[in-house]
Amino acid sequence: MDDVPGSVGTSASFSLRLGQTIFSSASLLFMSLGVEFYSYTAFCYLVTIMGLAIPWSFTLAIVDGYSVLVKCPIRQPGILLIIVLGDWVLSTLILAAASSTASVVDLLLHSNGSHCPPKICSRYKISAAMAFLSWLLSMASSLFNLWLLPSL
Amino acid sequence: MDDVPGSVGTSASFSLRLGQTIFSSASLLFMSLGVEFYSYTAFCYLVTIMGLAIPWSFTLAIVDGYSVLVKCPIRQPGILLIIVLGDWVLSTLILAAASSTASVVDLLLHSNGSHCPPKICSRYKISAAMAFLSWLLSMASSLFNLWLLPSL
Repeated sequence: MDDVPGSVGTSASFSLRLGQTIFSSASLLFMSLGVEFYSYTAFCYLVTIMGLAIPWSFTLAIVDGYSVLVKCPIRQPGILLIIVLGDWVLSTLILAAASSTASVVDLLLHSNGSHCPPKICSRYKISAAMAFLSWLLSMASSLFNLWLLPSL
Repeated sequence: MDDVPGSVGTSASFSLRLGQTIFSSASLLFMSLGVEFYSYTAFCYLVTIMGLAIPWSFTLAIVDGYSVLVKCPIRQPGILLIIVLGDWVLSTLILAAASSTASVVDLLLHSNGSHCPPKICSRYKISAAMAFLSWLLSMASSLFNLWLLPSL
């Protein structure tokens, strides 16, 4: 069987997972640096989702790294299905969180009584952008693994 | 070949498309009834996306209705792939629009200087809920057709 690049246990997948971990952590950090995030529901939601996404991506990055080192990729359809479903659910949640954050930041920037210092608001913007990048990578992982699934 | 319930050209698919059209139209109507939607980016985005989703769902509902009547479902992989991709892109966009709208409505309701009359705000809420329902149905259509695709 040919290896699909980007599926579990390849070095491309390892890079994707590493990217997800980095972008999710960056999103969480930029959000938490401004201490006012708990006053907005959308920002709390983003922090919660990133708290889920970081351990998930990090665990799978370790699994991928291990598979690449011992040259023995995972090929059980059950495990792969769980990974595909988990990735898919997470990417949906991350997309929802990212677009909520982006729209709230936009509203804060353009509302009349603007109560958002430029420095903090730009942090929120960077956080939303990082969340979108994390979504892209997470969806790519899910699609690559879904592509591999029928051939098992 | 067995028919997957919910794939293009079945009565289940027709119901799904009809539901999408109805929920998208309801979302658009409830948003447009409050005349202030153009002052918020997220609401404009929702209106734009719904303006895309309604013709798409309506066209496919007509195609499905026709297929059911003449008992001759579409089975070209190319056309099916376009439908799956279109559904998937649209459902992603609808999810982003729905969560943006929901978070902005939440912010408007709970901000200190609340500039949102309860009657208009409840319309926005209903509009966001309708958009979420439209997302669910659109994703269901996409998944059912994706399920059918490898067997062609």
